[in-house]
Amino acid sequence: MKPVCLIIGAGAGIGGCVAKRFAGGGYHVVLSRRSDQDGLDRLIKEIQQQGGSATGRLANAVEAGVIENLVTEAAEIGQIEVLIFNLGAQIGTRTLAQTSLKQFELGWRMACLALFRAAQAAMPSMVKNGKGCFLVTSSTAAVRGNEGQHAHAAAMGGRRMLCQTLNAEFGPKGIHVAHIVVDGAVDAPDTLGKLIGPKNFAQLRDTVGSRDGLLDPNQIAESYWHLAHQHRSAWTHEMDLRPWSELPWWNDKPLPTAKI
Amino acid sequence: MKPVCLIIGAGAGIGGCVAKRFAGGGYHVVLSRRSDQDGLDRLIKEIQQQGGSATGRLANAVEAGVIENLVTEAAEIGQIEVLIFNLGAQIGTRTLAQTSLKQFELGWRMACLALFRAAQAAMPSMVKNGKGCFLVTSSTAAVRGNEGQHAHAAAMGGRRMLCQTLNAEFGPKGIHVAHIVVDGAVDAPDTLGKLIGPKNFAQLRDTVGSRDGLLDPNQIAESYWHLAHQHRSAWTHEMDLRPWSELPWWNDKPLPTAKI
Amino acid sequence: MKPVCLIIGAGAGIGGCVAKRFAGGGYHVVLSRRSDQDGLDRLIKEIQQQGGSATGRLANAVEAGVIENLVTEAAEIGQIEVLIFNLGAQIGTRTLAQTSLKQFELGWRMACLALFRAAQAAMPSMVKNGKGCFLVTSSTAAVRGNEGQHAHAAAMGGRRMLCQTLNAEFGPKGIHVAHIVVDGAVDAPDTLGKLIGPKNFAQLRDTVGSRDGLLDPNQIAESYWHLAHQHRSAWTHEMDLRPWSELPWWNDKPLPTAKI
Amino acid sequence: MKPVCLIIGAGAGIGGCVAKRFAGGGYHVVLSRRSDQDGLDRLIKEIQQQGGSATGRLANAVEAGVIENLVTEAAEIGQIEVLIFNLGAQIGTRTLAQTSLKQFELGWRMACLALFRAAQAAMPSMVKNGKGCFLVTSSTAAVRGNEGQHAHAAAMGGRRMLCQTLNAEFGPKGIHVAHIVVDGAVDAPDTLGKLIGPKNFAQLRDTVGSRDGLLDPNQIAESYWHLAHQHRSAWTHEMDLRPWSELPWWNDKPLPTAKI
Repeated sequence: MKPVCLIIGAGAGIGGCVAKRFAGGGYHVVLSRRSDQDGLDRLIKEIQQQGGSATGRLANAVEAGVIENLVTEAAEIGQIEVLIFNLGAQIGTRTLAQTSLKQFELGWRMACLALFRAAQAAMPSMVKNGKGCFLVTSSTAAVRGNEGQHAHAAAMGGRRMLCQTLNAEFGPKGIHVAHIVVDGAVDAPDTLGKLIGPKNFAQLRDTVGSRDGLLDPNQIAESYWHLAHQHRSAWTHEMDLRPWSELPWWNDKPLPTAKI
Repeated sequence: MKPVCLIIGAGAGIGGCVAKRFAGGGYHVVLSRRSDQDGLDRLIKEIQQQGGSATGRLANAVEAGVIENLVTEAAEIGQIEVLIFNLGAQIGTRTLAQTSLKQFELGWRMACLALFRAAQAAMPSMVKNGKGCFLVTSSTAAVRGNEGQHAHAAAMGGRRMLCQTLNAEFGPKGIHVAHIVVDGAVDAPDTLGKLIGPKNFAQLRDTVGSRDGLLDPNQIAESYWHLAHQHRSAWTHEMDLRPWSELPWWNDKPLPTAKI
Repeated sequence: MKPVCLIIGAGAGIGGCVAKRFAGGGYHVVLSRRSDQDGLDRLIKEIQQQGGSATGRLANAVEAGVIENLVTEAAEIGQIEVLIFNLGAQIGTRTLAQTSLKQFELGWRMACLALFRAAQAAMPSMVKNGKGCFLVTSSTAAVRGNEGQHAHAAAMGGRRMLCQTLNAEFGPKGIHVAHIVVDGAVDAPDTLGKLIGPKNFAQLRDTVGSRDGLLDPNQIAESYWHLAHQHRSAWTHEMDLRPWSELPWWNDKPLPTAKI
Repeated sequence: MKPVCLIIGAGAGIGGCVAKRFAGGGYHVVLSRRSDQDGLDRLIKEIQQQGGSATGRLANAVEAGVIENLVTEAAEIGQIEVLIFNLGAQIGTRTLAQTSLKQFELGWRMACLALFRAAQAAMPSMVKNGKGCFLVTSSTAAVRGNEGQHAHAAAMGGRRMLCQTLNAEFGPKGIHVAHIVVDGAVDAPDTLGKLIGPKNFAQLRDTVGSRDGLLDPNQIAESYWHLAHQHRSAWTHEMDLRPWSELPWWNDKPLPTAKI
């Protein structure tokens, strides 16, 4: 029986490409995303046509019990050895006044509470199994808060600290928790594409993207695969990912006199 | 008319001592705390006996509208020039299994959402006034997640990022937002005292505390006063505070071979 | 006998303003700078005319024995209670090819080795005295390395870690070591003025500076004074300083899609 | 002609294991270490017996011209596509008084200046080639300074900032610079073994090591291989590595009340 890789947030970007990578590597991947049944079906079919094994269903992670049920269902297929937590909470740039309480809370429910719930649901069987891996997609907003990112940064900052408390408790039990800071624009129609609009996205792809200046989710998936298979004597808990042409978040672009 | 300093979380520790310091410095302080009417009355009387001006009432910050009303009421007394956000969310050390969804959510409502709501309520008049100061008490859990701190660290990590997004939007509008990392045990009966119990607390005071090894909230208040009165040409956005005898959170204590 | 405040790097910017502030507060200030005897004499006279007590001499901190002698001479005047380490190592923006081995080494000798030597010279008497304070001026280059800052960032990064190792050893002995991240352009003719040229500097002052958009070294001095007089139960080991209108180094300016 | 992987600091630990991994992957590895000709010969022979290609010589990296010559010689064998900078500067725990100027400077020459020199020597041909990779082994001392680590932490802190300035200049030119924070004890006789003595080392291996509680350099080498072959659309610039049973440097072990 194949080991299971459960992917929470399996769209056409990182989640979908990680799904293909792990299915290709011998896992049965269980996929979930909030909407777009067609997209989900296409992804599953694509994986199966490549000889991989995949199942999945739509699920709204913020609803009570939904994540817990996903974990239970996935565990019935096989031992969950890898859980990819890939829910984003980006709602674009909004001033404080433009950010509603509802948006602020929803961001937290998706980016932070959902991870807590997924951990509560999945950790016990991983601990019983003596091993397991939690790969948590995160963003620059988890390490510094930019203008207009109130909801997103607050949610991701919580996510990062939660990854550290999860690792502190479960690392010594054999569960590998890694926090991955994706520090750049990902070539993903379902997220960036919707955020900036199809026209801008197409243009970005034709210019920056054509020079590998957008994060290719298939390449991100290679690093996820590596992290999930690091020997337990040398685990990574935090790593960043960005395109070669993109300066890291900590650099000024360009360098103002003010910051030397 | 005196400028107003609104303190959300005015117990017998940092909040109460900051209240005395700012009242002594010429502010009318508006105090709020969740419970203990007697403690609140004692604090107000103490301030008034020292010639200061103070009012306040009990308020449960997580209830809808409560923080918003506090800000409105305080603004009726005078321009809120300083807002001290001092709500803690420490519930002690609990494993993931011991941490309920309710506790995890409550921690976020107190440590993170309440700050967001306070900012939405208070920023507009500060912006209109061209100046204002938000001092946010925070903890080591905002910069790294320790074992058993799932709820607390996730909430404080969100708080820290929120302080950064607030500063990014409101700093250039003249509002000073400072995030203060209290990295040690505070000599505060209402928080640490309740957390570790009166007996342990008394013992801690007699030993460590007698050598200034506990953070004296009156001394913390001096740094709050300094931050609130920094000239706008030289503002601090993050500073840490700990006792001289306490190694910072980033140091091993003692040094294991593993970490050199 | 007045307590002594030794200032290594006392030019017309932070060092000179801190000198005035501490002299005004009752310290005998001992000043040293590499060059400009007239500037040094003017500063001493100015302090004396304000009723303060000051002495000093030119000294090239990178020469063998020079810092050690400065400390010895200062200690003969009185107990060194505060040492302000204010040597900069900014040589402007240079590519790797443009940065000579000599420049790279000189930056380290000024920014890092000189601090190590000052600590070796001054700590013993501070330890004997049971108290003392080391305030170390630092820059954004100590927390992240920007393009063209090879020599400066490598030197300041070493300085920051050295402040932490000094604090780890001497904090528990009663010596307060604080690392101050000056994250913006300082209104200082001797440093920024020389770096960008008098014309650009004058223009910067007339525009940004006129709106408090440059760090006023006299205001920085107020925070140095505060740090030096924090009660030992609540010490700060790292704080940042920047103008209200300046976004912190960690923020994008403006926000690119790539970094949300 | 095989691409060249130049390893500066090729002992029996990380350097040697990375050498085997890259030789096995098709690189001609050029090895250098300060001393132990026999050890070097054994390593080369071992690689060759496994069908790999390796050459090398003893070299004292702190001597003028030595690193520059190593790079020149390696380039004559083939294009240097990967440079592994693996020089350590750990001299054990020493108080400030016990740390000599000579030791402090030597640490910097090995950990920081040598990297600067290696970059000056190797970058031009990498830039001309349009690609290249610099993998820099680093330690926890690069991100926080522990007691007794004055020389080591100051040197590694400089190394980390230098990696960032190198990346800022050369990343956009196609050169991948990665800073790897090795946050734990490595199962390496040449370094840890010598640091704590053969007896303690043997005991550590039998206890902690037998449970994968020491970093296995062969496993570290797998992550180096991954980093060196990340597609340029998704590069990692900093990652940490530690054993599963080892809490990260940022966690208290165990959790004191003081730090919740």
